[in-house]
Amino acid sequence: MNLPSVFEKYRAEIDAELKASLAARQSPLYDMMRYHLGWIDSQGDPLKDSAGKALRPTLCLLACHMAGGDFRHALPAAAAIELVHNYSLIHDDIQDDDRERRHRPTVWSLWGKPQAINTGTAMRLVASRTLSRLGKYGIPLSKQATVYEILDEATLKLLEGQYLDISYESRFDIGIPDYIRMVEGKTAALIACSLEIGALLGTDDEKTVRCLRDIGWNLGLAFQIRDDILGIWGDQGRTGKPLGSDIQHRKKTLPVAYLLEKADHSQRLQLIEVYKSETVDEDGIARVLRMLDSLDARSQSQMIAEQYYQATVRLIDQLALPSSAKQDLEEMGHFLIKRDF
Amino acid sequence: MNLPSVFEKYRAEIDAELKASLAARQSPLYDMMRYHLGWIDSQGDPLKDSAGKALRPTLCLLACHMAGGDFRHALPAAAAIELVHNYSLIHDDIQDDDRERRHRPTVWSLWGKPQAINTGTAMRLVASRTLSRLGKYGIPLSKQATVYEILDEATLKLLEGQYLDISYESRFDIGIPDYIRMVEGKTAALIACSLEIGALLGTDDEKTVRCLRDIGWNLGLAFQIRDDILGIWGDQGRTGKPLGSDIQHRKKTLPVAYLLEKADHSQRLQLIEVYKSETVDEDGIARVLRMLDSLDARSQSQMIAEQYYQATVRLIDQLALPSSAKQDLEEMGHFLIKRDF
Repeated sequence: MNLPSVFEKYRAEIDAELKASLAARQSPLYDMMRYHLGWIDSQGDPLKDSAGKALRPTLCLLACHMAGGDFRHALPAAAAIELVHNYSLIHDDIQDDDRERRHRPTVWSLWGKPQAINTGTAMRLVASRTLSRLGKYGIPLSKQATVYEILDEATLKLLEGQYLDISYESRFDIGIPDYIRMVEGKTAALIACSLEIGALLGTDDEKTVRCLRDIGWNLGLAFQIRDDILGIWGDQGRTGKPLGSDIQHRKKTLPVAYLLEKADHSQRLQLIEVYKSETVDEDGIARVLRMLDSLDARSQSQMIAEQYYQATVRLIDQLALPSSAKQDLEEMGHFLIKRDF
Repeated sequence: MNLPSVFEKYRAEIDAELKASLAARQSPLYDMMRYHLGWIDSQGDPLKDSAGKALRPTLCLLACHMAGGDFRHALPAAAAIELVHNYSLIHDDIQDDDRERRHRPTVWSLWGKPQAINTGTAMRLVASRTLSRLGKYGIPLSKQATVYEILDEATLKLLEGQYLDISYESRFDIGIPDYIRMVEGKTAALIACSLEIGALLGTDDEKTVRCLRDIGWNLGLAFQIRDDILGIWGDQGRTGKPLGSDIQHRKKTLPVAYLLEKADHSQRLQLIEVYKSETVDEDGIARVLRMLDSLDARSQSQMIAEQYYQATVRLIDQLALPSSAKQDLEEMGHFLIKRDF
């Protein structure tokens, strides 16, 4: 499965805006950011391809276009959102002790955790600075202030979700509603905000903005659930994520939350035994996989992802938009729940 | 030596504004912030006193008053600056592995480093949200945007300084100019921004704003150098900082940068031997102290701090201000270079 064409449409302009947002910055802090973004290697030599799919900025620009605006007016916001996402990845890698991401050493594994903490926080602040470039497209100050607020609040929701994600690692009373509450923050908040801000920069119609935000919320949940499935059953060569790493990290992903809801007494005890041991080894991962398979957790999780996708399709139908734009967004959603990377 | 009376003048209103900035926030993330700020204990029970001197918000309000404004208009900015300072302390404690601050366990030592990273970053974002309260005092949007920018850029400078601070730990070619460059970021940027923002909210006169910012820059250097002296020779009971901890952390504080500049070949080799060992133990700390004393590094450092204080006095003289306001600022500066806590 390849990336839908809509990812191609905006890619060059997103990259240019991202590069502009760091262009004047001179401390080695910013080189660590450039490394993380895949623009240079650890020696500072340029690389050809940027890292990542740029999902969130693509959604932001698409929403601006769908709402009737010129997508270029949303470029600074799209870049800012991508920087917020990437700051959170830099801190995630520290928190989860992950030495690799996208087949490359993580920032902390090269420069140490103290410097990686600084790099992540600084990247979050560069995101805010990038928003100030909205002025050059004639976006009024009052709307700029609203965009700042939406992005700050989305990042706070993201952090509240990450708080839950980490606190769930040592808990066994996590059901599907707890999982949803965590993912609303960890993933859906920033994806919803990508569409909300894009829409806001394309229209003054509040109903359209709200509808696109809700689409983003549902897409975010669908996206995360597919991510959970790939984190357990995905092809390591495609995902760039070590196999079983979510299980190893004791993450309460949807398949595991489903398992915790459906498990009988003996399965529950087995699961707790695996997760309470000092390290979750290969044998432990294999035991959890067998339990997940015995309860059909994979296809149950996929079904829930598809329900969220169906919800987005219904919301898209409510929008008064040209069918080509609707098709782009539907294709994107379909990709998010079917992708293998 | 007690706190000058100007700290008392604004204290209650600073505390109220800080509490308001967190009042509506509900996740345990915010309770960790309240703990760090000294409002509650680790069980969530209220405490009587807030932690810290609130130096930066006091300077911000004083600058607003000195520039001819109503200090209340700067309260949201003063609270935001205090939150920025405290976010950086939460991350500092993680980076330096410090288990205690102000005689209390640090956030990470109670809740773990991953959650403390989240708490710090979230606190930095709450600071930005707090600035949006400037609107209720009738501060125009364009000036609000400038305040956002100054605070973001000051935080980036702070992070650039922290980058240097950490990178210096393994270096021995650090002289006084390298030290100054690091402290300009780590400490002076946020103190200069406290006075600059306060002034900006009190006047439209650019010269006054610039002069108060420069006063802040000099005060920041004087403050940090006194901090360095207390970090080596201070009374642990007064400072709340474990004795010799700066030496243990291999920090290139001013006394050590001075030592590195003045040391003869054998002293230099001794210093490198201490700092290159696995851990800097009591014996190592004692050896460094003997070298510092033999070169009179303490009084030399104090002299440099006093030079920065004298520079602030000269700048204060240039301001066309009522003498009572000038006196408050001079007293504050005098306290900063003479304090023992």
